[in-house]
Amino acid sequence: MKINSQISEQYIINKFLKKLNLKKKETYNFKNDAAFIKNPKNKHIVITTDTILESIDFFKNDPPDSIANKIITCNLSDISSMGAYPYAYTLSLCLPKTINNNWLKKFTKKLLYLQKKYNFFLIGGDLSESKKIVISSSFFGFASKGKILNRLGALTNHEIWITGNIGESAIGLKIKQKKIKLNYNNKKYFLNKYLYPSHCSFGDKICKYASSSIDISDGFYGDLSHLLKEKNLGASINSKLLPFSKRAKDLILNKIVKINLLLSSGDDYQLIFTASPKNSLKIKRIAKKNNIKITRVGKIIDRKGIYLDNRKIKIINKSFQHFA
Amino acid sequence: MKINSQISEQYIINKFLKKLNLKKKETYNFKNDAAFIKNPKNKHIVITTDTILESIDFFKNDPPDSIANKIITCNLSDISSMGAYPYAYTLSLCLPKTINNNWLKKFTKKLLYLQKKYNFFLIGGDLSESKKIVISSSFFGFASKGKILNRLGALTNHEIWITGNIGESAIGLKIKQKKIKLNYNNKKYFLNKYLYPSHCSFGDKICKYASSSIDISDGFYGDLSHLLKEKNLGASINSKLLPFSKRAKDLILNKIVKINLLLSSGDDYQLIFTASPKNSLKIKRIAKKNNIKITRVGKIIDRKGIYLDNRKIKIINKSFQHFA
Repeated sequence: MKINSQISEQYIINKFLKKLNLKKKETYNFKNDAAFIKNPKNKHIVITTDTILESIDFFKNDPPDSIANKIITCNLSDISSMGAYPYAYTLSLCLPKTINNNWLKKFTKKLLYLQKKYNFFLIGGDLSESKKIVISSSFFGFASKGKILNRLGALTNHEIWITGNIGESAIGLKIKQKKIKLNYNNKKYFLNKYLYPSHCSFGDKICKYASSSIDISDGFYGDLSHLLKEKNLGASINSKLLPFSKRAKDLILNKIVKINLLLSSGDDYQLIFTASPKNSLKIKRIAKKNNIKITRVGKIIDRKGIYLDNRKIKIINKSFQHFA
Repeated sequence: MKINSQISEQYIINKFLKKLNLKKKETYNFKNDAAFIKNPKNKHIVITTDTILESIDFFKNDPPDSIANKIITCNLSDISSMGAYPYAYTLSLCLPKTINNNWLKKFTKKLLYLQKKYNFFLIGGDLSESKKIVISSSFFGFASKGKILNRLGALTNHEIWITGNIGESAIGLKIKQKKIKLNYNNKKYFLNKYLYPSHCSFGDKICKYASSSIDISDGFYGDLSHLLKEKNLGASINSKLLPFSKRAKDLILNKIVKINLLLSSGDDYQLIFTASPKNSLKIKRIAKKNNIKITRVGKIIDRKGIYLDNRKIKIINKSFQHFA
C-alpha cells in the first residue's frame, strides 16, 4: 500500500510504528510473518478485540490522539474487566490517503504514552489503504490461572460496585452533537472526558475478591444487565450512591441533563463489579492503596430487573457490538 | 450495530458465529468481554494479524466463501511459516447493510469447514457496520519453545525449498482482470486457484530442520528477498527446478504468461524455506509422510541478489503490507 506519494507503508512502519515495539524480541522488530508471546507460569493469556470506525465510533475530524486513546482504552477496559493486566497488542490500520505525517505523529505519540503508562507493547499488525479510517486491535493480557473474572459469577446479596465516575463521556458527546450548551469550563471538562476517557485498571487487583465484572461501554444499565441476565437475577440500586462528579450533579440539578441519560449511555470505561459483602473491606483497602475511587451502589437481588430506588427500570434492548 | 432491519448483530452472532466457537470454554460462549488461551507447556503462542478490504484484496462480488477462504488462508500461512500450528482466531467483521442471510451462511460455512480441516476455533471478535467489507483477523498458534521459525536463519550454501506449485493464483487473477483468455477448463482451474488458495501447513513439521521460512504472499522473488536482505546474502535459482503445474508450464511454453509474472506476484500461500544440506533427507521424508510436495530450487550464496540461471533478477521494490 502507499498512503500517498510522500508516505509509503515502509515509511510509516519505520518512522512511526517501529518505536512502539519497545525493542521486544517477541516482535522480531516487525521483520517476521508473526510474533510470539511468552507467558509467565500460572498465567493465562486473555484476549480481546475491538474495531473502531470513522463516522460510527468517532468523528472524522476528531484529534488523532483521541482516536488513539479510544482504540487503546476500549481494549484495556476489557482486559481489566477480565481481571487481567495488559501485555501487548496488534494494530490493523486502514487509513485514507489524506492521512499525513502530522496525523501519524500525534496518533503514535499517544499510543506510546499509553503504552508506557500501562506497560505494554505493539507486537504486530498491518496497514491498508481505505476510504475511511478503520482501526482494529487485539489485546493480550495476563490473568492468574483460575482467577479470570467474567460476567457470570454474581450471586444474590452480592454488592454492586462502580469504579470512578459515570456519565461524563455521555455529557461530552451531547456537547459534541450540539444538543446541550454549557459554559466554557464545563464544556472543556466534559469534551475532554468524551475525547480522552481513561479505563480503570482495577480488575487484576481484585480478581480474588470480585464475583463478576464488566466494563461500562454501553452504559451502566445495559452493562449491569449483562451481569444479571444469565442467572435471572436483578439489581437494587440506590440513586443517591451513584458516583457522579460535582459538575455532572450540578447539570442534573439544573435539569440540563437527565440522570437516565448518564445511566444508559456513554463510554466511560469504568468497571461494574460484584462481590460478596464479606470481601468489601478487602476491596476498599485495595482501592485505597491504589488510589482508585470505588462506590458501592446497590446489591444483587433474586428478582429479575434493575430497580432504581425500588422503581423498575425499563431497559431499551441495545444490541451490542462485541462478542468477546 | 444493525446490519439491516432483518439482521441484527445479536442475530448474526447467535445464528452464524456462535457455532464457530466449537463450544470451547475459552470463549465463554461469546458472553464475556474477552476470552483466554490455554497454552501447552513448552509451547509459545505465535500471533499474526491480517486485514482484507473490499476492492483492494478482493472484488466486491467475489463469492463469500472465497472471502472467508482468503482471510483464513493468509493468516494460516503466516502461522505455518513460523513453524506453528493453529489454535484459535479472532474476527472483526465490518459489513455493509447489503449483506444478507445467504452471504453470511456461505461465509461462515467456509469458516467452519476450514476450522474443522485445520483444527482451530473462533475465540472472539466484533461486528460493525461499514460502507465496504473490511475483515480483520488475529490468529494464534502454538510453536515449540526455541523452535519458532523466522526469516533470519539462512546461511550460505543452505538449500532453498518451495512447497506446492507457484504462480497459480497469479494466472487466476489475470483471468479475473480479463487480461488473458484461456479455454474453459484452464479458466476454471486457475480461477479456482485464485479464489480458493490453500496454505501449506508444513512449517510446524520442519521447525527442527529448516533454518528460515516465509510464506509466498507477495510473490516468490519478493518473499525470497526477505530471507536474504538482513544478512546481505543472495540466492541462486535453477529455473528448470521451479515447481509449476503442468497447466502453468503449457501457458509459459505457449507464451500466454511470462515466467516473471509467476515469480513476482500471486497469493499462492506456499512456503519458501531454507535448510542445511545435511537436513535434506529428513525434510524429504517428512514431506513424503505428510503427502506434501516440496521442491529444492536452488541455494543461498554469499553474493547479494537473486540469480535465475546465473542471471541477476531486478526486483521491483514492492512495499509490503504486513509488519508482523
